[in-house]
Amino acid sequence: MPNLNIMVQKYGGTSVATPERIKAVAARIKSYVMKGFSVVVVVSAMGKTTDELIALASKITATPSSREMDMLLSTGEQVSISLLAMALHEIGIDAISYTGSQIRVLTDGNFTRAKIESISTERISRSLKENKAVIVAGFQGIDTEENITTLGRGGSDTSAVALAAVLGTRDCEIYTDVGGVYTADPRIVAQPSKLKEISYDEMLELARLGAAVLHSRSVEFAKKHNIRLHVRSSFNSEEGSIVMPKEEMMEKYVISGVTAKRDEAKITIRDIPDRPGIAARVFGLMGENRIYVNMIVQSTGKDNKASISFTVLKSDLDKAMRLCDSLKQELGATGFDSKQNIAIVSAVGVGMLSSYGVAGKIFQVLSEQNINIEMISTSEIGISCVIDDIYAELAVKVIHKIFIEPEQA
Amino acid sequence: MPNLNIMVQKYGGTSVATPERIKAVAARIKSYVMKGFSVVVVVSAMGKTTDELIALASKITATPSSREMDMLLSTGEQVSISLLAMALHEIGIDAISYTGSQIRVLTDGNFTRAKIESISTERISRSLKENKAVIVAGFQGIDTEENITTLGRGGSDTSAVALAAVLGTRDCEIYTDVGGVYTADPRIVAQPSKLKEISYDEMLELARLGAAVLHSRSVEFAKKHNIRLHVRSSFNSEEGSIVMPKEEMMEKYVISGVTAKRDEAKITIRDIPDRPGIAARVFGLMGENRIYVNMIVQSTGKDNKASISFTVLKSDLDKAMRLCDSLKQELGATGFDSKQNIAIVSAVGVGMLSSYGVAGKIFQVLSEQNINIEMISTSEIGISCVIDDIYAELAVKVIHKIFIEPEQA
Repeated sequence: MPNLNIMVQKYGGTSVATPERIKAVAARIKSYVMKGFSVVVVVSAMGKTTDELIALASKITATPSSREMDMLLSTGEQVSISLLAMALHEIGIDAISYTGSQIRVLTDGNFTRAKIESISTERISRSLKENKAVIVAGFQGIDTEENITTLGRGGSDTSAVALAAVLGTRDCEIYTDVGGVYTADPRIVAQPSKLKEISYDEMLELARLGAAVLHSRSVEFAKKHNIRLHVRSSFNSEEGSIVMPKEEMMEKYVISGVTAKRDEAKITIRDIPDRPGIAARVFGLMGENRIYVNMIVQSTGKDNKASISFTVLKSDLDKAMRLCDSLKQELGATGFDSKQNIAIVSAVGVGMLSSYGVAGKIFQVLSEQNINIEMISTSEIGISCVIDDIYAELAVKVIHKIFIEPEQA
Repeated sequence: MPNLNIMVQKYGGTSVATPERIKAVAARIKSYVMKGFSVVVVVSAMGKTTDELIALASKITATPSSREMDMLLSTGEQVSISLLAMALHEIGIDAISYTGSQIRVLTDGNFTRAKIESISTERISRSLKENKAVIVAGFQGIDTEENITTLGRGGSDTSAVALAAVLGTRDCEIYTDVGGVYTADPRIVAQPSKLKEISYDEMLELARLGAAVLHSRSVEFAKKHNIRLHVRSSFNSEEGSIVMPKEEMMEKYVISGVTAKRDEAKITIRDIPDRPGIAARVFGLMGENRIYVNMIVQSTGKDNKASISFTVLKSDLDKAMRLCDSLKQELGATGFDSKQNIAIVSAVGVGMLSSYGVAGKIFQVLSEQNINIEMISTSEIGISCVIDDIYAELAVKVIHKIFIEPEQA
């Protein structure tokens, strides 16, 4: 049985950007304490602190050691937790702050992108028993040597869900400035809908395809431990979006989100003999070289020659092209080329499974706008199309209009 | 035998105030590494960081919890150590940074003014064996519960000397912006002399009497462990001042420093019966109430009535006066009064022991200027006079002129 007495909350950097906002967060926490909850709060660094610390390091060196970077960045959260504890004391709520080290957030040793392996609940439970609100520094942990590690951008979400998991709670509230999960980026679509509910898999797919609301690992953790993530705003008391098991969802949309991802480039290897092992060789080499490959499409052409297209992060493109070059002879390929100005436009939704013709409808609305589709990839709950990036916003708008806006009415 | 291979250095906040200065400190450390030293470096927070963090906390609460204050303030040094390690890497020197927690700087649990009880050398020694420069966060430690503690203003000096003690070194270099110990405050005396050598006891006396070059506890630690403190500038390569055992000093001045202290007030309790136990009662009560009493003078007047004058910090004056009021009847005193606008002007020097007439000469130069002496207190190596604070600078100038300037010529 989940523990319904403990409430785990996470407040992002915007929510604690100034002393005034920290006081507002303290007032919100107090309201939960007054309702009888034992509250465990995870906080990020104030506002742009992390960016400022990175800028400071860049004045010293262009190639900072990742261990020292984590030593530096972890101070941001330590400042927030102490100030939030003070703000709670000021309004009469007993509270105590803990660093990742103090509650033994044990991670692997991959500095700047460490993964949590365990958290000790001993000290947290003791403080909760003493009726203290517990304030924990997000984003940080220690490895087995007590070196300070960090979890990567957005890692505080994962800190919060991991705490919810070890404390056995059902819910975890994630306070952000956006206040929920939307059907599209409001910078592209004027009036996107806020989703009341969304499944773990859809959320993961949206995160993978460009929606930056939640740290992916936090959603994986939540799925694994069956924790409901309530994404909401710290600036008002509106209900947000709940990321939850698909089976428990009351409402299912055909498409719950439309995204555009513009940080990838496309590589095409042409005219390679269509024989087994080619794809394994290409993507094995990419993996060995830590290049993240997102979409992959293979097609067979004439004379038993195939071509493979795939997308990598633009920042990895040069490296990936050099690797392709090294394979050219071995594969017997006639050539390869890359294209940088692409966008991956995707539609995600569990409802696709039970709706006919979703893909066809998407291809049709794109063709009506004369948008050429360069690659297509489908999963159980999503369809992604690679198009020229000048059409990215247009594509999102028309897909959103045909699938989502009728339901808004 | 002291370890002459390890060099412990401490750089103050001014020395690491900007990325450029941090790089200059790294270059200096490199020069020691190149000479074959194993270097252990203690750093303070950058520039005014500590003040800025205090100001930030004051926007949240006027009465911050001291535990949370230490959580907050300790981040300042953590930023400096990571940046200094990066700066060393950048110029090809292997280096690793450690927080107080990571090298187990164990203190008592008195937040904001903790005392170091032990330091583990295990991890430092291991890093030195790996030919790494070790960068340690000054000012901070942990208590037995792993709460973060700080040592009070100037505490990084004490961190450095404590490290020198546990590592068994003979020397500890303290880099400051002033570059040494001077015979007087340069804001008062135009051309004070930099002392080549000064004894631990003189340095302690100077610190007690208003010279703020070194944290007192660092000098006590150095004296106890026979460590030479080399106070010097991080902005040039001039020799500074060495705080060392009196017996090993080459030069002894009659007076090595003249100070003025203006943060104390004087209290006088008049006409109390001259019987045993009065002083014990008064100062016992002050001690119980954590009021620091500096000078004490008792005089016997007519009719076996005594008066006691003493000085306390101006910030403690109201509290001390209330305590006196509570004792009035018990002591049978006719009254008490206080004076805020006083200064304690002092001359300190081991040479006083072997020189005749120093006190007389001081009283004479003050009387020549018509400066009235309200209290006098002497120790083996110092003489302090309480005077009206409008004469403080004049008194320092004339005492400096008669004792120190002839030796400068």
